[in-house]
Amino acid sequence: MSQIKEFIKQNEGRFLEDLFALIRIPSVSAQSEHKPDMQRCAEHWREHLLSLGVQTVEIYQTAGNPIVFGHYEKDPSLPTILVYAHYDVMPPEPLELWKSEPFEPEVRDGHIWARGADDDKGQSMIQVKGFETAMALGLVHCNVKFLFEGEEEIGSTHLEQFCREHLEMLRADNIIVSDTSMVSAETPSLTTGLRGLAYWEIEVTGANHDLHSGHFGGAVANPINELCKLIAQVQDKDGRITIPHFYDDVVPLSDEERAMIAKIPFSEEEYKKFLDVDDLFGEVGYHTLERNSCRPSFDVCGIWGGYQGEGAKTVLPSKAYAKVSCRLVANQDHHTVSEAFIKYIEQIAPKYVRVKVTPMHGGEAYLCPIDLPAYQAAEEAIAVAFGKRPLAVRRGGSIPIIAAFERVFGIKTILMGFGLESNAIHSPNENMPLDIFYKGIESVAEFYKIYPKR
Amino acid sequence: MSQIKEFIKQNEGRFLEDLFALIRIPSVSAQSEHKPDMQRCAEHWREHLLSLGVQTVEIYQTAGNPIVFGHYEKDPSLPTILVYAHYDVMPPEPLELWKSEPFEPEVRDGHIWARGADDDKGQSMIQVKGFETAMALGLVHCNVKFLFEGEEEIGSTHLEQFCREHLEMLRADNIIVSDTSMVSAETPSLTTGLRGLAYWEIEVTGANHDLHSGHFGGAVANPINELCKLIAQVQDKDGRITIPHFYDDVVPLSDEERAMIAKIPFSEEEYKKFLDVDDLFGEVGYHTLERNSCRPSFDVCGIWGGYQGEGAKTVLPSKAYAKVSCRLVANQDHHTVSEAFIKYIEQIAPKYVRVKVTPMHGGEAYLCPIDLPAYQAAEEAIAVAFGKRPLAVRRGGSIPIIAAFERVFGIKTILMGFGLESNAIHSPNENMPLDIFYKGIESVAEFYKIYPKR
Repeated sequence: MSQIKEFIKQNEGRFLEDLFALIRIPSVSAQSEHKPDMQRCAEHWREHLLSLGVQTVEIYQTAGNPIVFGHYEKDPSLPTILVYAHYDVMPPEPLELWKSEPFEPEVRDGHIWARGADDDKGQSMIQVKGFETAMALGLVHCNVKFLFEGEEEIGSTHLEQFCREHLEMLRADNIIVSDTSMVSAETPSLTTGLRGLAYWEIEVTGANHDLHSGHFGGAVANPINELCKLIAQVQDKDGRITIPHFYDDVVPLSDEERAMIAKIPFSEEEYKKFLDVDDLFGEVGYHTLERNSCRPSFDVCGIWGGYQGEGAKTVLPSKAYAKVSCRLVANQDHHTVSEAFIKYIEQIAPKYVRVKVTPMHGGEAYLCPIDLPAYQAAEEAIAVAFGKRPLAVRRGGSIPIIAAFERVFGIKTILMGFGLESNAIHSPNENMPLDIFYKGIESVAEFYKIYPKR
Repeated sequence: MSQIKEFIKQNEGRFLEDLFALIRIPSVSAQSEHKPDMQRCAEHWREHLLSLGVQTVEIYQTAGNPIVFGHYEKDPSLPTILVYAHYDVMPPEPLELWKSEPFEPEVRDGHIWARGADDDKGQSMIQVKGFETAMALGLVHCNVKFLFEGEEEIGSTHLEQFCREHLEMLRADNIIVSDTSMVSAETPSLTTGLRGLAYWEIEVTGANHDLHSGHFGGAVANPINELCKLIAQVQDKDGRITIPHFYDDVVPLSDEERAMIAKIPFSEEEYKKFLDVDDLFGEVGYHTLERNSCRPSFDVCGIWGGYQGEGAKTVLPSKAYAKVSCRLVANQDHHTVSEAFIKYIEQIAPKYVRVKVTPMHGGEAYLCPIDLPAYQAAEEAIAVAFGKRPLAVRRGGSIPIIAAFERVFGIKTILMGFGLESNAIHSPNENMPLDIFYKGIESVAEFYKIYPKR
């Protein structure tokens, strides 16, 4: 057994407890009642990083949630790794579908169950415990900076400006992030691409108060009917998005990339079985693994209006709402897409309802080359921990700040994520397999052992 | 001042208190937590009717909410009027839009404000106080039966069977109901037609759990997107319903009826101003007053799915729901329409989602001839109280049990309603103008004075 494996084995209970303490702070950035938890969580990280030998750790207040910055300075002449993570989590709703409390982590069937077990508390703890392990064994041969924010799930609103204002402080050779997922537990992978995102809220108003659908139905536009018609016009029957000029800047998939994607182990039957669907739906002409990573998508994330309670209340409501989003791919500009969407909806909206489209947040897609030394160190580290060389794959999720880092610092980010699709991030019963948690820590420790010696 | 007017004037405070006591029982039939209130409300009516000299009042339990039956027997050889009303009310939600407590009635600006102020507690109290007034003045020349149910707002589920099982007990010459509205306070009217109703809940299921829209978006059908597409396919751009065979049984509007409708005072500009809409939308080729009373309609009464909270949560939800309804007109059979709708949705539903359509309730449309003695007595009574002969108009609402009464008893119902569109029934801030409440009572007392002498 390697020295690293042994150290992790000896400390596994404590590592888990450290994660649990972090999870118990319900740092939900989307819900304003959790505002005090954001500060608590930032302070918790500061104390924890200081306890590991990171010499300086500061909390920076922003107009939103605080940013934690830590600096472990080994030797100014050595290369510097910036570890980025986020301490905020998604809302736990719908609560009734959780099998255990979202903010009281539980180990069941070899998994950790809790909101944030993976995204991103589990994964950020993998980074920190990997660093701790490497530190304990004298294996850290670089400077390490930690940048932990509390607004990733709501669009990293203040981080880019913070980066621009602290260019020198944050200077590094590469960024390393654990906030993505692997192909599977058996097929480790590194993420070389991310999708971008544009997100809007649509509000449709009919009459200025709820109406009796008997007295007014048929004579006055129903905002829910009209919202549905608008949404139905954003995607055609071939799964293509109908917003004018939407695909103008999309970089077509190369034959090489399609060939690489074809190498990823994938069974459509198992995928359908996992999802419990009779059939899949996506853009005509593309494979599932292309659709969910290299092609844009349009999803209604939430919709509401009128009576949602028990029974059969008849009402012609005054308002209807939807939260809708597009995943974007290289080289779509999210501002351009956002404006095109708003223009399109305004153009197709009938004049008998009032339609307001509010852009909520957005971010660009990202691509990472596989010949960077830091990428290769990560590849080798994972190969040691998982016993298998990781595939290089593009993933469908979005971490808008990754593209921003490249814009601001001019450096690339290594997406060394340890999530699994079955971890149910953003959903009830989010979880992380225990063995992945420990293999992740091992991978990060191995990374420090290797980097920057190659 | 007439003897009737005088009596009402002397008793107006007490009449109002009697209504308030009834309103304070939150008898919401659609919400199961109010089950005990249904029994309380039925018992309240029994005690009240007994106190007015109705000789026998019984509460009949059903598989749903109790039915109150009272019988004032003047002389078996005289004609009998059956007064039908309902003591259940609609849910008060959304609560935040009420200016005063829905179940704590308040008089403001000359109106009574409360859930049920009109529908149907206010109107049923008009009937009962009119009867009380006529009784006090020795003006009741017929037998009067009272049939008060607690399930009108959820489809009168058990009333029709109850009627079939108590044919002899309920035997009458005409039914009289105050549960409709007048053209306006200045233009009193009697309702000669009602629309029918069909109501369904649609459930669309995609994957069996909520998914990360980044990891799965574009590759797996989104049930909200698909629900919107289904709903968008139920109505065309001309406002016509696209369910196959939907209009097959609709009786076309006659030229005579269109001419009568054209006599109703109506300003489209004022109507739009009242609703605060820039334009109206309805079936091409019909006037607003035809659309909302003599033509069928399709309305989404409620929709929900995914994330509805604060902020921008990205999620590809597992489920989406809608409550949808059609108002029907003579001679549409609600069962036939319901089956046609279910068949249509199942036919257009794509195989990559699972769609379940559950019929919730329904009822037929109703038409009343204007040459009935009871209709003419009502017409004359209203003319006395309001100083103006009431118009005969078809209305857009549905009281499914009215058509059922005709099927079961073979008799017609006089729809002697005193509501106003501005009373906001089924909505927040339901209300009833005080002067209409008292004029209604006067009309009912005048009705007893006239009927059956004509």
